[in-house]
Amino acid sequence: MAFGEFELIARYFQRPQRPATGTVALGVGDDCALLQPRPGTQIAVSCDMLVEERHFFRDVDPATLGHKALAVNLSDLAACGARPLACTLALALPRADEAWLSAFARGLFALADVHDCQLIGGDTTRGPLNICITVFGEVPVVDGRSQALLRSGARPGDEIWVSGTLGEARLALEALQGKLPLNADVLRVARARLECPTPRVALGLALRGVANACIDLSDGLMGDLGHILELSHCGATLDTASAAGLLAVDAGLDHEQRLALVLGGGDDYELLFTAPVSAREAVLAAGRQADTPVTRIGRIEAAPGLHLVDAQGRPVSGRFASFDHFAQTAGP
Amino acid sequence: MAFGEFELIARYFQRPQRPATGTVALGVGDDCALLQPRPGTQIAVSCDMLVEERHFFRDVDPATLGHKALAVNLSDLAACGARPLACTLALALPRADEAWLSAFARGLFALADVHDCQLIGGDTTRGPLNICITVFGEVPVVDGRSQALLRSGARPGDEIWVSGTLGEARLALEALQGKLPLNADVLRVARARLECPTPRVALGLALRGVANACIDLSDGLMGDLGHILELSHCGATLDTASAAGLLAVDAGLDHEQRLALVLGGGDDYELLFTAPVSAREAVLAAGRQADTPVTRIGRIEAAPGLHLVDAQGRPVSGRFASFDHFAQTAGP
Repeated sequence: MAFGEFELIARYFQRPQRPATGTVALGVGDDCALLQPRPGTQIAVSCDMLVEERHFFRDVDPATLGHKALAVNLSDLAACGARPLACTLALALPRADEAWLSAFARGLFALADVHDCQLIGGDTTRGPLNICITVFGEVPVVDGRSQALLRSGARPGDEIWVSGTLGEARLALEALQGKLPLNADVLRVARARLECPTPRVALGLALRGVANACIDLSDGLMGDLGHILELSHCGATLDTASAAGLLAVDAGLDHEQRLALVLGGGDDYELLFTAPVSAREAVLAAGRQADTPVTRIGRIEAAPGLHLVDAQGRPVSGRFASFDHFAQTAGP
Repeated sequence: MAFGEFELIARYFQRPQRPATGTVALGVGDDCALLQPRPGTQIAVSCDMLVEERHFFRDVDPATLGHKALAVNLSDLAACGARPLACTLALALPRADEAWLSAFARGLFALADVHDCQLIGGDTTRGPLNICITVFGEVPVVDGRSQALLRSGARPGDEIWVSGTLGEARLALEALQGKLPLNADVLRVARARLECPTPRVALGLALRGVANACIDLSDGLMGDLGHILELSHCGATLDTASAAGLLAVDAGLDHEQRLALVLGGGDDYELLFTAPVSAREAVLAAGRQADTPVTRIGRIEAAPGLHLVDAQGRPVSGRFASFDHFAQTAGP
């Protein structure tokens, strides 16, 4: 592990060495960092790579990019109910642009500090812009059982919940790509959701022992719910009326357009989770504790398949031409 | 963590799920992987990013590239005396070339299997070719003290050792860049060292409790020894006669050229370590145990600075114009 060839860059990511904590026994500066997990805990690990013009626009504000690069990783920890501990950052950069680097580091560290997530190492090199972060979190093990929230834990009868609001990131993307007119106020709100997502770390922690299954919404609700259904070997019914209401901004869209954004949007970084009916109050309490709205949008079924229903419970399949459009659009 | 957008690619990195072991509690497939370190151990973490035309040639054999991408990371674990446990792989690829992917995965997994290093997650995306691997290793903690080998542990009076041979990787690079004529047999040997390095994992493990300090040689002996001196707050005397003998191939070079390759070569992935004189037999035994040659090339001094001496102990500083040439040459 070397902040080696590109020392100028590395400088922006080196901070005064913190004293070794219970968990980070050694940080930046040696061949390896050393993590010493507390007894009775596991280390949750996740890794995301962000590429220019695929995951972000070339001209994005570097401070928000630093934020987002870490946020999408912290969102994976949140989905597991893991408490952030540390991260590594590998960065390929076409040139050493000090203003860019300074802003990127500022954005990244501001979010890292909120979650007490220490940068323990990484690598910097010259190359096409590429940001690869690996995050480490802590999950307790109680009576030999991991408290991690997994995709595989959903049970028939569970209610399906999502945090926050959905679809605004995709709305911003469509507008920025010129596919959709959007007034400046709405675009500002939606763009903030695209470029500066809030990882739902507190909610993930509060859902330990409450939710049966959890995933973070990065690729769109339909696809990500599909992962839960596949790994939990079950199906689901989704209430499209509740779902369509999750779009927080008024962009003059009709019901189907809103639904398409919510179901197929992507880049939401909210949590989708399932919990037994008996845990309904506990879920709402977790939302309050984490200061994060949570909304019930469906139910896990024993029979496989994903069924969309309207407010009266009638099937609505076949009405999602626009959903397919959104789902298949490429872009950052 | 998603093997998401680029499912075709992900397929090459998914293997039959292994049962959870003592340490890897959950592998590929969820938002996070889960590591459960054994009691009395730390997790060593390292991360390296490889970029086309900077760390490898565009036309390199993908199987050797898969090997090397993991090898350079395992080398960092070796330098810490850590036993490999697991790794994540983030991969950006310009296109889904099945033949390339299949060979890359084969090379990577062949080395991973040698070291029982399980791929526990990662990310795949479209983008300019970029390979980012994070490795995890296990280091015991005995009586509250980490057994990790660090750069900071060198003590005045320690002898300086290196494993294996040095300089062949740089020799191959110079030849492949057309800067140096090399006959086919020599090039073949040197090129194997450049493209297919052997991480000295067994030696790193055998040196725990024997060596005082250790680093892996990725950027060249002089620079990497410099890291030990800086972090250990000491100096060193280096025997250039012993050092020059570390180049394993006969390329018709004179003493200074050989010395320049050995001291400034880079990409060697051998271990440089220091140990007290009293541990000399233990070092040799560690080398035998790991089936890895080890050579004494100098001594740690209390006074700062790096002093090069000849076989008679006379200073040789100022004679390394060619060293500077090699040290400053850019290239993969």
